[in-house]
Amino acid sequence: MKQLLEKYKKIRSRLNAFSYAMYVIGWDSETEAPKGCFEERSNQIGELVSMMLELSHSEEYVNTVKELYNNKNKLSKDDSLEIEKVYDSLMKELKIPENELVEYEMLLSKANLVWCEAKLSNNYELFKPILEQIINWQKKYIQYLETEKLKGYNVLLDDYEKGFTTKEYDDFFNALKNDLVPFVKKVTSKDVIDDSFTKLSYDIGKQKEYASYLMDVMCFDKDFGLTKESEHPFTSGYGTTDVRVTCHYYENLITSSIFSMIHELGHGTYERQCNPKYDNTALSGGTTMAMHESQSRFYENIVGRDYYFWKRHYSKLQKLFRKNLKDVSFEDFYKAVNKSEKSLIRTEADELTYPLHIMVRYDIEKKIFEENISVDELPLLWNKLYKEYLDIDVPSDTEGILQDVHWSGGSFGYFPTYALGSAYAAQLFNQMKKEMDVEKAFGEKTLKKVNKWLGEKVHKFAGSKTPKEILLEVTGEEFNPKYYIEYLKEKYSKIYQIEN
Amino acid sequence: MKQLLEKYKKIRSRLNAFSYAMYVIGWDSETEAPKGCFEERSNQIGELVSMMLELSHSEEYVNTVKELYNNKNKLSKDDSLEIEKVYDSLMKELKIPENELVEYEMLLSKANLVWCEAKLSNNYELFKPILEQIINWQKKYIQYLETEKLKGYNVLLDDYEKGFTTKEYDDFFNALKNDLVPFVKKVTSKDVIDDSFTKLSYDIGKQKEYASYLMDVMCFDKDFGLTKESEHPFTSGYGTTDVRVTCHYYENLITSSIFSMIHELGHGTYERQCNPKYDNTALSGGTTMAMHESQSRFYENIVGRDYYFWKRHYSKLQKLFRKNLKDVSFEDFYKAVNKSEKSLIRTEADELTYPLHIMVRYDIEKKIFEENISVDELPLLWNKLYKEYLDIDVPSDTEGILQDVHWSGGSFGYFPTYALGSAYAAQLFNQMKKEMDVEKAFGEKTLKKVNKWLGEKVHKFAGSKTPKEILLEVTGEEFNPKYYIEYLKEKYSKIYQIEN
Repeated sequence: MKQLLEKYKKIRSRLNAFSYAMYVIGWDSETEAPKGCFEERSNQIGELVSMMLELSHSEEYVNTVKELYNNKNKLSKDDSLEIEKVYDSLMKELKIPENELVEYEMLLSKANLVWCEAKLSNNYELFKPILEQIINWQKKYIQYLETEKLKGYNVLLDDYEKGFTTKEYDDFFNALKNDLVPFVKKVTSKDVIDDSFTKLSYDIGKQKEYASYLMDVMCFDKDFGLTKESEHPFTSGYGTTDVRVTCHYYENLITSSIFSMIHELGHGTYERQCNPKYDNTALSGGTTMAMHESQSRFYENIVGRDYYFWKRHYSKLQKLFRKNLKDVSFEDFYKAVNKSEKSLIRTEADELTYPLHIMVRYDIEKKIFEENISVDELPLLWNKLYKEYLDIDVPSDTEGILQDVHWSGGSFGYFPTYALGSAYAAQLFNQMKKEMDVEKAFGEKTLKKVNKWLGEKVHKFAGSKTPKEILLEVTGEEFNPKYYIEYLKEKYSKIYQIEN
Repeated sequence: MKQLLEKYKKIRSRLNAFSYAMYVIGWDSETEAPKGCFEERSNQIGELVSMMLELSHSEEYVNTVKELYNNKNKLSKDDSLEIEKVYDSLMKELKIPENELVEYEMLLSKANLVWCEAKLSNNYELFKPILEQIINWQKKYIQYLETEKLKGYNVLLDDYEKGFTTKEYDDFFNALKNDLVPFVKKVTSKDVIDDSFTKLSYDIGKQKEYASYLMDVMCFDKDFGLTKESEHPFTSGYGTTDVRVTCHYYENLITSSIFSMIHELGHGTYERQCNPKYDNTALSGGTTMAMHESQSRFYENIVGRDYYFWKRHYSKLQKLFRKNLKDVSFEDFYKAVNKSEKSLIRTEADELTYPLHIMVRYDIEKKIFEENISVDELPLLWNKLYKEYLDIDVPSDTEGILQDVHWSGGSFGYFPTYALGSAYAAQLFNQMKKEMDVEKAFGEKTLKKVNKWLGEKVHKFAGSKTPKEILLEVTGEEFNPKYYIEYLKEKYSKIYQIEN
């Protein structure tokens, strides 16, 4: 058994080296690589992926994993959890023909570039053919992986959040539709908050200075991470010692860089606070997409848009942008960053309307995979749903169907986890309030106490616990969307002085 | 035969993917990776290198290369050249026991740290023991690789510049000693050029703007390359479609970023202008160290410090730094960037004294490997040689024997290629003058004509021709150091108004 485990770890170590290489190549390509090298890069990635697959699908490795899986009761708890996870995903992978996977990876690395160009030039037609190829591949993927229990779109949903299918998501989104959509209409019909001052000219150098200040507030250790600019903010990294976040700065929208920075640093804090013993194991990093998103949104919305947080940290911002903010009180600023309105861009959406943006995408993905709607129809459908949920007209595909990077990366079934993450966060927050003086903790010079609480309750377990287990152990009950709805209604009723 | 070649190319393609990964990881680590991930990265690199070696030393690969080598007359010219190159370096590699290579790599990674510390604290004694270990390893390496024709130090020299041994280098450096050293003494004894204005405060943002201007002057295509900051400037890349250069900006030394930018872009232009058919073959990139250095120095010194170049491009600089340069004419600036003086630090040396710095290192390396001089004697020898060649006293080992990183990285035999590169450049320049109105070409808005000439004569051949072949074909004669000496004497006689 010990020998078998050694054998497994030796191969794992090689597979990790490939992952590490792919991570650095990916980071490079998304943040600075010259566009002319993309073809060369695709070829090299293809070769690396093919070597990696050869190894991970080798008889030696597969048999080792199988044998360990069959004897997992003899393993330590962590090893057993890891083997279970590896076994599951390996059995899935083996159902996909290797050459198709390699071709797909190469397709994706090209798709990102095409999407960028299409978005920049508001040209959906440019993106459409490659999007169709990606969707077709996803459909083939579903066919390979379908089981008696898991069919169609559910295959994709389960990939991102194990145990969540259209049944669970429909329940969740229906609760939002019933309870939240009417409430949102009440809120967004009121035009009582002035946030025009957030759209003045804000020097990007100074925005970066404030971003760096926020890193300190969040206790983000620059020896083990870095920040950089990219078109679309994201978090990347390898293990607990190399965590990287990106930000995009807009001169005429100060809130964008602030909240995307806090959001990405939230992801980063989760990664940084995992127990390092999980580094280089299959249990490293956050446990699921939704739980990851719950942490970024906890920091971004629950902490980052909190009254006491801004009471503490507004003065620094005011000092940096005296000309724009000298007559704006912190209360005004607090309200402005919580202004809720009909809007077009998901990543810029406020906390309250955000889940409605997700509902649009969830509905479209369902139609793609359950009703086989064609790529030609997507822009119109997109625009129709935005009208329905958010009562807004979409003026261009750049601000519509082309706005998100996800589909160009083959991420279907991913969006719903964003809304679910917010709901996890609200449930965790409900518990945190019972155990800690949150007003005090959010208003301190740094978020040390918040980091510690989330570190102990969520982060340190990395992938060794499921969201189900975490929620149950931390809050004493299973996932319940009511906390999310309650949280939003309570917060926005106060800000907008609406009877709850 | 065709099958055999296919087999070779399949494995080569995998080896290339490893090289590509190592390139991106290296770029990342030298330009931005957080310092805390160093250990994780070393482990991952170790794993990648070990996989790469396993493949390149596999029986299958070695036998394929051997068989192709034995039948190289049946191959196309390019394939045959490639196989020859691969065979030679593979046979060399296989002579070194793998475990010794691994131990040596570990020694080097430690040595770099020790060297840093020793340099910072001006403590040669600290560096001495590990330097001795490195030298002993090099001596062992020489023993493994020695042949009837190639003995001692020549083994190392040949590694960096095939075909150049102490015989050729002695001829070269003796010519410099006889002709250049007395001339340099004449020049550096005159103190007629004022370059104090280059040491005022120069805004780094504006320096970057000028660097970007220089990229345009050199026609460097930003779609296939990029520039970035790093502690020490360098050029990196992969093939012809991904060429990257770095620069370091000093607020109080405007010339540093200008000339290191032109220098690195010179390397970059060579890479960019290689015939793309050599990409991913063993013939990709520049042909040798010295030829690569000849191109960077051609751009940096022959073009970049030229009278007509500055006549054209000074006004842009003057506009950017009006306050510092408003009373400085382009002639003053031209003289300042060509000021020659006795100096201690190789990397900051001017064009004229530079080869004397190299001579010091060459003499020392010869004594190490041919006369077994002990490491105890090196600092004194260093200081003695600086007095002899440059007539300067060395005040500390930090500015003396400890100044360069090379020996701590095991690079013995490398330094001479720097001086040789300048000499290649001068010989090429002598020919260029016969074929082109260089005053006009250097003074044009862009260096298109210079790029074209060097591209046609040197760059496009990538690694498919030796420097010997290139010089012979382009200039009609073998390497001859007299052009270098003539070039320097002519240029500096004019600037310093010395009778030649």
